[in-house]
Amino acid sequence: MQHHSLRIFSGSSNPKLAADIASRLGVELGKIKLTRFKSGEIYVHYEETIRNCDVFLLQSLSHPINELFVELLVMIDAAKRASARTVNIIVPYYGYARQERKSAPREPISAKMVADVLTTAGATRVLTIDLHAAAIQGFFNIPVDHLTALDLISGYLKTKNLSDVVVVSPDAGRASMAEKLASKLDSPFAIMIKKRPAHNESVITHVIGDVEGRTPVIIEDLIDTGTTIVNVVEGLKERGAKNSIVCATHGLFSGPAIERLDHPGIEEVVVTDSIELPEGHSGRFTVLSVAPMLARATSIIIEGGSIDKLLGDAGI
Amino acid sequence: MQHHSLRIFSGSSNPKLAADIASRLGVELGKIKLTRFKSGEIYVHYEETIRNCDVFLLQSLSHPINELFVELLVMIDAAKRASARTVNIIVPYYGYARQERKSAPREPISAKMVADVLTTAGATRVLTIDLHAAAIQGFFNIPVDHLTALDLISGYLKTKNLSDVVVVSPDAGRASMAEKLASKLDSPFAIMIKKRPAHNESVITHVIGDVEGRTPVIIEDLIDTGTTIVNVVEGLKERGAKNSIVCATHGLFSGPAIERLDHPGIEEVVVTDSIELPEGHSGRFTVLSVAPMLARATSIIIEGGSIDKLLGDAGI
Amino acid sequence: MQHHSLRIFSGSSNPKLAADIASRLGVELGKIKLTRFKSGEIYVHYEETIRNCDVFLLQSLSHPINELFVELLVMIDAAKRASARTVNIIVPYYGYARQERKSAPREPISAKMVADVLTTAGATRVLTIDLHAAAIQGFFNIPVDHLTALDLISGYLKTKNLSDVVVVSPDAGRASMAEKLASKLDSPFAIMIKKRPAHNESVITHVIGDVEGRTPVIIEDLIDTGTTIVNVVEGLKERGAKNSIVCATHGLFSGPAIERLDHPGIEEVVVTDSIELPEGHSGRFTVLSVAPMLARATSIIIEGGSIDKLLGDAGI
Amino acid sequence: MQHHSLRIFSGSSNPKLAADIASRLGVELGKIKLTRFKSGEIYVHYEETIRNCDVFLLQSLSHPINELFVELLVMIDAAKRASARTVNIIVPYYGYARQERKSAPREPISAKMVADVLTTAGATRVLTIDLHAAAIQGFFNIPVDHLTALDLISGYLKTKNLSDVVVVSPDAGRASMAEKLASKLDSPFAIMIKKRPAHNESVITHVIGDVEGRTPVIIEDLIDTGTTIVNVVEGLKERGAKNSIVCATHGLFSGPAIERLDHPGIEEVVVTDSIELPEGHSGRFTVLSVAPMLARATSIIIEGGSIDKLLGDAGI
Amino acid sequence: MQHHSLRIFSGSSNPKLAADIASRLGVELGKIKLTRFKSGEIYVHYEETIRNCDVFLLQSLSHPINELFVELLVMIDAAKRASARTVNIIVPYYGYARQERKSAPREPISAKMVADVLTTAGATRVLTIDLHAAAIQGFFNIPVDHLTALDLISGYLKTKNLSDVVVVSPDAGRASMAEKLASKLDSPFAIMIKKRPAHNESVITHVIGDVEGRTPVIIEDLIDTGTTIVNVVEGLKERGAKNSIVCATHGLFSGPAIERLDHPGIEEVVVTDSIELPEGHSGRFTVLSVAPMLARATSIIIEGGSIDKLLGDAGI
Amino acid sequence: MQHHSLRIFSGSSNPKLAADIASRLGVELGKIKLTRFKSGEIYVHYEETIRNCDVFLLQSLSHPINELFVELLVMIDAAKRASARTVNIIVPYYGYARQERKSAPREPISAKMVADVLTTAGATRVLTIDLHAAAIQGFFNIPVDHLTALDLISGYLKTKNLSDVVVVSPDAGRASMAEKLASKLDSPFAIMIKKRPAHNESVITHVIGDVEGRTPVIIEDLIDTGTTIVNVVEGLKERGAKNSIVCATHGLFSGPAIERLDHPGIEEVVVTDSIELPEGHSGRFTVLSVAPMLARATSIIIEGGSIDKLLGDAGI
Repeated sequence: MQHHSLRIFSGSSNPKLAADIASRLGVELGKIKLTRFKSGEIYVHYEETIRNCDVFLLQSLSHPINELFVELLVMIDAAKRASARTVNIIVPYYGYARQERKSAPREPISAKMVADVLTTAGATRVLTIDLHAAAIQGFFNIPVDHLTALDLISGYLKTKNLSDVVVVSPDAGRASMAEKLASKLDSPFAIMIKKRPAHNESVITHVIGDVEGRTPVIIEDLIDTGTTIVNVVEGLKERGAKNSIVCATHGLFSGPAIERLDHPGIEEVVVTDSIELPEGHSGRFTVLSVAPMLARATSIIIEGGSIDKLLGDAGI
Repeated sequence: MQHHSLRIFSGSSNPKLAADIASRLGVELGKIKLTRFKSGEIYVHYEETIRNCDVFLLQSLSHPINELFVELLVMIDAAKRASARTVNIIVPYYGYARQERKSAPREPISAKMVADVLTTAGATRVLTIDLHAAAIQGFFNIPVDHLTALDLISGYLKTKNLSDVVVVSPDAGRASMAEKLASKLDSPFAIMIKKRPAHNESVITHVIGDVEGRTPVIIEDLIDTGTTIVNVVEGLKERGAKNSIVCATHGLFSGPAIERLDHPGIEEVVVTDSIELPEGHSGRFTVLSVAPMLARATSIIIEGGSIDKLLGDAGI
Repeated sequence: MQHHSLRIFSGSSNPKLAADIASRLGVELGKIKLTRFKSGEIYVHYEETIRNCDVFLLQSLSHPINELFVELLVMIDAAKRASARTVNIIVPYYGYARQERKSAPREPISAKMVADVLTTAGATRVLTIDLHAAAIQGFFNIPVDHLTALDLISGYLKTKNLSDVVVVSPDAGRASMAEKLASKLDSPFAIMIKKRPAHNESVITHVIGDVEGRTPVIIEDLIDTGTTIVNVVEGLKERGAKNSIVCATHGLFSGPAIERLDHPGIEEVVVTDSIELPEGHSGRFTVLSVAPMLARATSIIIEGGSIDKLLGDAGI
Repeated sequence: MQHHSLRIFSGSSNPKLAADIASRLGVELGKIKLTRFKSGEIYVHYEETIRNCDVFLLQSLSHPINELFVELLVMIDAAKRASARTVNIIVPYYGYARQERKSAPREPISAKMVADVLTTAGATRVLTIDLHAAAIQGFFNIPVDHLTALDLISGYLKTKNLSDVVVVSPDAGRASMAEKLASKLDSPFAIMIKKRPAHNESVITHVIGDVEGRTPVIIEDLIDTGTTIVNVVEGLKERGAKNSIVCATHGLFSGPAIERLDHPGIEEVVVTDSIELPEGHSGRFTVLSVAPMLARATSIIIEGGSIDKLLGDAGI
Repeated sequence: MQHHSLRIFSGSSNPKLAADIASRLGVELGKIKLTRFKSGEIYVHYEETIRNCDVFLLQSLSHPINELFVELLVMIDAAKRASARTVNIIVPYYGYARQERKSAPREPISAKMVADVLTTAGATRVLTIDLHAAAIQGFFNIPVDHLTALDLISGYLKTKNLSDVVVVSPDAGRASMAEKLASKLDSPFAIMIKKRPAHNESVITHVIGDVEGRTPVIIEDLIDTGTTIVNVVEGLKERGAKNSIVCATHGLFSGPAIERLDHPGIEEVVVTDSIELPEGHSGRFTVLSVAPMLARATSIIIEGGSIDKLLGDAGI
Repeated sequence: MQHHSLRIFSGSSNPKLAADIASRLGVELGKIKLTRFKSGEIYVHYEETIRNCDVFLLQSLSHPINELFVELLVMIDAAKRASARTVNIIVPYYGYARQERKSAPREPISAKMVADVLTTAGATRVLTIDLHAAAIQGFFNIPVDHLTALDLISGYLKTKNLSDVVVVSPDAGRASMAEKLASKLDSPFAIMIKKRPAHNESVITHVIGDVEGRTPVIIEDLIDTGTTIVNVVEGLKERGAKNSIVCATHGLFSGPAIERLDHPGIEEVVVTDSIELPEGHSGRFTVLSVAPMLARATSIIIEGGSIDKLLGDAGI
């Protein structure tokens, strides 16, 4: 079983990123047929042999999440049955990650269900970026390479030579990502205290830390509807802060998020291409590419070696 | 752990059928919150305790199949974690069943993936009707109660006192269902021979068996787009048959199937409520209810006893 | 762990075929001790090292099926414990395949039990031919390479330059294999309609399709007792057909099948060596060898590459 | 799921014992169809409902061992799929137990394979007697109730009021069973030292302990071919012992064992009915019944309570 | 299998708590022999039958953690093999929880290993309190009832009628527990910002929020060595705060923690008896009992019903 | 995935042996950080990349057994998550092996629990020496290479040119190891008969075999507290034997065993370095090294080939 060559295939979520990674690795993107029957059933066919190959499947669990998730399951099943040597999944954005514990009785832990189901289908390794909760790594018993885009973001911010920055965490429960970015930028940080009367809603009650006269760099792993961000931006303005720079690894932008973020209090929105940004957004949006990082990690997985450099301040 | 009471919950696919079954069993349909976040993620919350209960979850894998499938996974996960004693899934229509084997290399066997994944999520028993391939029962290692609607359909047809019937199988590969119905109706049967130049397409080449001057009763497990059925109906007309009665357990009716079946060569379309028929169809459609059969099976599962009577000519 | 050399071992069922495959692959058949103690217990000992090797074990589940099945389990267990790198089983004829679904309540699905048990014992891949039901592929979660002998059989028939052929399926439920052969031979086909008053028994009631004056080519995946075939042959003669050519991938020939098929209405019986034909049969029997096909598939499994060519009209 | 009634079914090995146990428990033996097709395939059908029942399946792995083993697997599979609540197997004699470790490289550990495979098929509990190696209990992760017939045997011997007894172990490796029986009978014991030039063969080289003028009680878990026993008997006679009483829990009696044990140096052969003794043996054979012990254990399994009393000097 | 009675057994960690729970449930603590051989091997023997019982095993993974962990594994194994109906583990303090993700490459995720291993040994349910990371619930596929002591602690604090309280989180990464307590006490909160030059070490750099002149209530899930707490207390004093009240669910008190917390800046240390407090501590320590909460949860697990009331602000 | 290089790491139990093996294989011992937090939690960090490597972890389950066992689990978990290609564990002394079966109801089978848990954590192969019960091999489904030190011991004894030797088994239940050594030394053997009033205690009642005037070579797999050995030695002296040579593969030496064995009736104690002998023992102790044997086995595992030569009279 000599031929362990590398094959990279893209699901429907993010073909540009997959092509970029393949090109950096000096291989062509694998040929795969991905269709839907009239019944809505997904059909997958690998159009080249993958027997004994190390197969990498790229799929972000972005919009439409359930379609993309089932598509990935079907891709994995077909790869396993086609005698792939290993079935590695690159999931730049791991959806359902916010359902990683029960916060009330009789809820699911959907992030675990997703992990179990991907493994059952036949995945043998996961490569992902900035999980909403780092403990999700432990939901898998297959190896997980968990990268972070925080260095990418802080590197970009440094090139802007901002002064009077304050890093802002929109949420007490996730203050450590802000703490890390503040430490990288050597700046103070602040935390917004809010109440969540319901899912997808939140009300800022006060701010801990000093923001007046400063440029807030708001940092999140994920921008979803943008409502929270806009609340935070407005709360900051009310407290005397300047316009904000909004940063996140994953720009999910659900509903009218892109329009919503086209807000006078926001100077710039910085995200990565872990999720493909739709066309037609304003110039306020900056997209940093995770392709070099993912290509390098893929190369290390194949060649052996340590992934340390890529982990930066892992354990977001 | 004394309280093993029965709880029935409905997914989004078919709440009327679930309510009907619950009512026949003398229980109220369980309260469950089923929502979708803006991100498209499904969220489930059981709004009453199910600890130590025998939980039955009803979901057909009809349109939109991937949404309904993931919803069912999340429902199962939440039920398992809420300490349900058993998690029984009633899947009147089991989607992806036509992908039950590889017909070319490097294809998935999606029907198996679905079975494995449902089991991994935590299902402990399956109750289903007229699987596209009976061997799918064997894809599970949990018990499967596999019912058939063939008696329901033949019982209905007998009330019509049709004469000169010929039962027609639209497909050589699935002639045995037609053979069984023909035997129940004590009538001859015929088989359409066709070519499939592509998925969702077919061309009738000839007919084996005598159809001239007869009323064809076309029988299928599933009507999908209706294209095949219309081809068969027209092929039969060309060969001198009368207008057809089209029967199937599952009326999936993808795309403009309902309009398509409103065809001059079709006298009546007979299906069951294993899939909820959309509003606004013509009077040509007759819907038989599987609720009595599913209620009876559920009762037997809880009380013990034999399910023989319900199986009719099982092994479609 | 560099040495991944290929080793082929034969169980008791079919040593000639194993030797033929090994020879085509340019290796010697591996040395293995297979004995039975007085207690009837099977004992296996590999008489050469297989550490880190890709081991292929050939065993058809033919007569005596349970002995051969347990022998295969013991061979797999010993190979796994001897640190074989992979344990591939070549099962040209997969017995118990007709028990692939429950046709009555409280029956086993023995074909699934066999699949699960082979996997538990340690098999990592299956190579087989013309499964009675293609869905049995899905009973396994390890890769299955499912080949077909239909091209071998149709290739042979073409060399005979027969005219006025009609391909006959002895059974409505399995008409698709006949449909495929008819298409390859560009000839019409017909289906026998029968009743099964009991297991191993059947009564022909009528024929769908035109057989008069034609030479029937009866096609089955498997010839077991031959009773059905003889009924079919006689039913065809009564309906004015010529003598039949009987074809099947697997010649199991249980009981007095070989004598029974030495019948005046049968011109020739064509089978493969997936099961070793006993000595002393008449000249009516033609045996085609699957060794080239299995050797080629084994080579592809080891070397990588696509098995497409071998699949012909897979999905029997 | 209230109806957890007890059902006992017998495999082909030992229907008398099963009927005796059922009768002691006040239930009728369950109705089951056990047949073999002409192909040798085993077919099983439970002829009464077992849904939600605690099913007990009795099968010794005696002659013909592989047939009986596969039959048990098929029985388990069918019971699991028929929704039995628990599938308990009573295996009075657990065959393949002598292959419980590798004594040379590249051998199987068949006793483990058997345990794994029974569990995979769906067994949920095992009840057995005098395993050849007690550690086989640990091969299972399902509960094992391991009983011993040593009290039964020693109780019987005490009723004979023998004097000058010496308990003899035919084998150094299994001296502890003899030591236990000697302790129960309050008598000395001796060990035969032998060489095994090959499987099923052995040569006595000398005896440790004093046997002259004494009545040897030879004790083994299992009598297989009887060759060893006859060697031991003759070795004892040569060393001045009287005629022997030969005792074993399991009388497998392979080949001409029964004739062989009809030997002038043997006064009596004492075994249990864990394996059904064939007809036509001489009056030298005494059969003690394990039915009371197995019935009591089954009752405890159902009712709860401690099985201590039945274990006697467990850990043979 | 009628007798499903409840049995509670205590491991070595916390027999007083176990006895208290048993007494509240009106049962006697089960008799179990727990010893260590001279080799250090743990030996467990249940001294009463547990067949068909719902067994609850109480063990905190406190000092000495590895001994207690292996003891629990052995207790579970013995319970499983003794045919317990269910094996529920009550782990008031779940050790290794701080190793719930990789924060550097080539680290373990020990909290997941512990979860997997407990499940493999045979645990069927977990009852625990204030996990260090709530996502650890998802490390299990068996049901987890995750309780919180936050209501117990806030209830106690309210009885003290403190004024000018500020709730303090010693760590940005875990600010949400403080946020919740602040909300319950209707008081402001503050966060200490620190650096961790090494494991078990930390240096406060600054504080976010207003603490001057206030009484800090420091809240943690766990007090380990007490070093962090003392740093925080001193940091608060330097910033003008009053003496602190230190609260935690789990008082692990490693090394000289108890002496260390006998500090002039600390007015009171409030913990629960999830871990047994050693004798000889000063009057500064207040211990609240989790016994009522655990007894109630156990009762609900047995009787059915909802555990909502006990969850308070679950999802610490 | 080309780089499959070998890496050997040592747990805390036996670093000298690990270094010796590494050196014989021409590699450096891998760098690993093994620490304990103040909480007693073990922390492991591989300080060099092991991605795609064949990792060998050496750990004897000697004193303190539970610490060493959990340390090994954590090492395995970290290696698996660091993407090691294979995780091979070398466990020269496998503790808990004496708990390999239930000798009373409601006991654990701890040796099986240890095997299951090591596999769950991620071990893919085991290399061990002289298991207390050979059947423990079958507790694993991963490959086990089971070596013996009996040739090492007999080779050493032969160099002493002893005359009038009698090999003595201290126990009837384990006489086969003595029988094998006697056969290698071509000497007679004897068995001590004893009672065990309690664990770790035993009383010699008599001896089977002739020991008067002879030099006893007492052989055991394991010396634990030494109490049994001293009883045996004294029992032999009373029966006229000379001073004894005490041999064992594993010198566990619990409690004051080393002092106890410094006994006038003992001439020499021969053990291997499977367990590291503490400093300060008398000159009576001879330590033979298993390093050459383990190095050779490791090399064969990597390179392929047969381990026969190393197995000697395997199946102790």
